[in-house]
Amino acid sequence: MNRFADATAVRSIGDGRYAGVVHEGWDIGGNANGGYLLAIAARAMADAVGRPPLTVTAHYLRPAPAADCEIDVAMVRSGRRLATATASLSIGGKSTLQVLGSFGEQTPGGPSRQMEEQVGLPAYTDCVTAPPPNEGPNPALMEKIDVRMLPEDGGFRSGEPSGRAEISGWFALADEEPVDAIGLMLVADAFPPPVFNSGLPVAWVPTVELTVHVRGVPAPGPLRCSFRSRFIHDGLLDEEGEVWDSTGTLVCQSRQLALMPRP
Amino acid sequence: MNRFADATAVRSIGDGRYAGVVHEGWDIGGNANGGYLLAIAARAMADAVGRPPLTVTAHYLRPAPAADCEIDVAMVRSGRRLATATASLSIGGKSTLQVLGSFGEQTPGGPSRQMEEQVGLPAYTDCVTAPPPNEGPNPALMEKIDVRMLPEDGGFRSGEPSGRAEISGWFALADEEPVDAIGLMLVADAFPPPVFNSGLPVAWVPTVELTVHVRGVPAPGPLRCSFRSRFIHDGLLDEEGEVWDSTGTLVCQSRQLALMPRP
Repeated sequence: MNRFADATAVRSIGDGRYAGVVHEGWDIGGNANGGYLLAIAARAMADAVGRPPLTVTAHYLRPAPAADCEIDVAMVRSGRRLATATASLSIGGKSTLQVLGSFGEQTPGGPSRQMEEQVGLPAYTDCVTAPPPNEGPNPALMEKIDVRMLPEDGGFRSGEPSGRAEISGWFALADEEPVDAIGLMLVADAFPPPVFNSGLPVAWVPTVELTVHVRGVPAPGPLRCSFRSRFIHDGLLDEEGEVWDSTGTLVCQSRQLALMPRP
Repeated sequence: MNRFADATAVRSIGDGRYAGVVHEGWDIGGNANGGYLLAIAARAMADAVGRPPLTVTAHYLRPAPAADCEIDVAMVRSGRRLATATASLSIGGKSTLQVLGSFGEQTPGGPSRQMEEQVGLPAYTDCVTAPPPNEGPNPALMEKIDVRMLPEDGGFRSGEPSGRAEISGWFALADEEPVDAIGLMLVADAFPPPVFNSGLPVAWVPTVELTVHVRGVPAPGPLRCSFRSRFIHDGLLDEEGEVWDSTGTLVCQSRQLALMPRP
């Protein structure tokens, strides 16, 4: 049973256009998770260009309710090493997500230097689950993904934020469904916003822009994730993260810019 | 004398199209600096949408020689808070740069938390200038910008890399020309690649993707900059950085994904 693959499936309807569905149950309070939405668009783009995503940037234009959607993909350039394309995901004829991406494989081998170690975490079973706080329970999404936070990063759920705008933990899809390059789009936005641990009063943090760099195809097993906000001011905040697979390889870097609403 | 403003000037030719010039002397070995090229496109986009850039992503498709260029801007959505647009910069009819951006002002005030301090640097005059290594001298560019590196980060120039893929230092435009939101596009790509200090054999590091988040409009004076590569493997590397103004405000965050050619 591959729920994520099914929930992000797209069907070519010609001329670079794809039909898809923003499914129920992948939302936070009725608005589709931003990583899930990007995954649908990236799947259409990857199909159109015939290569997996390498670096993808999405700008979020409107909230996305569960509904049929259409993705219009336009090839910008197809080269030997990379192909670049743009896409617009629309719901009910309204542009909801605008995407720019370059597609292609990593080329294993060559010079290598990892300046940082993977995030240290307790065992998967010793971490804590993460219902989205202040946003209503979302049991449907938590049946589909299994996010397990470092216990000390889970304090915000009970009104005891750590004071550090950081959340680390494990990510897995339900039923051991493998996470591929498309799945990493979801991983990049699946954790609660680290700003929830800052101690600042925050409810909803709408994403303006999300960039995901695919640095490898994950080996099987839960993924180690670390997310943080470093700079919160003047109505905006960043959120960046890294994802490592079970072999200790960095497979994803993400960064987003989000709105920090006034309390 | 505002050389950067002149060198990135664009002229509307109707229907969201702009004429510009990729000027001589803003290149590394005949290929225009990526931040400079993005600045030209961002200026056209900002004019078309009537707001300054807030977050802009560019994908680099081809090397850019000095030549006339055309920028085609397409509005995606104009909202109350933000406007989103795409642009294609082409030279001789060939698409050279594809850009996606959201435009709008920061909204001063509100909740604020800075998790990191600005980079510590010696006085501007105690830092060292930065001719691009292994790429031929480039006196023309270095007359237009004044990049001064932390002395211990300048070792790569004489074959003594620090072993840390980091370069920090000061940035200023010549003749004290102010750096605005468009100028930050240049700042984000103006330093030598930090990978030059990794000790790995490297010559040219072509940018695939560059994202610049404008977090504030710089106050007058040289800018403090810090850039680093954290993950170098499988033919790709990241480069991320922060830029602070003379009041200690973070004004820019950048990240790029670049190709790591085989030696």
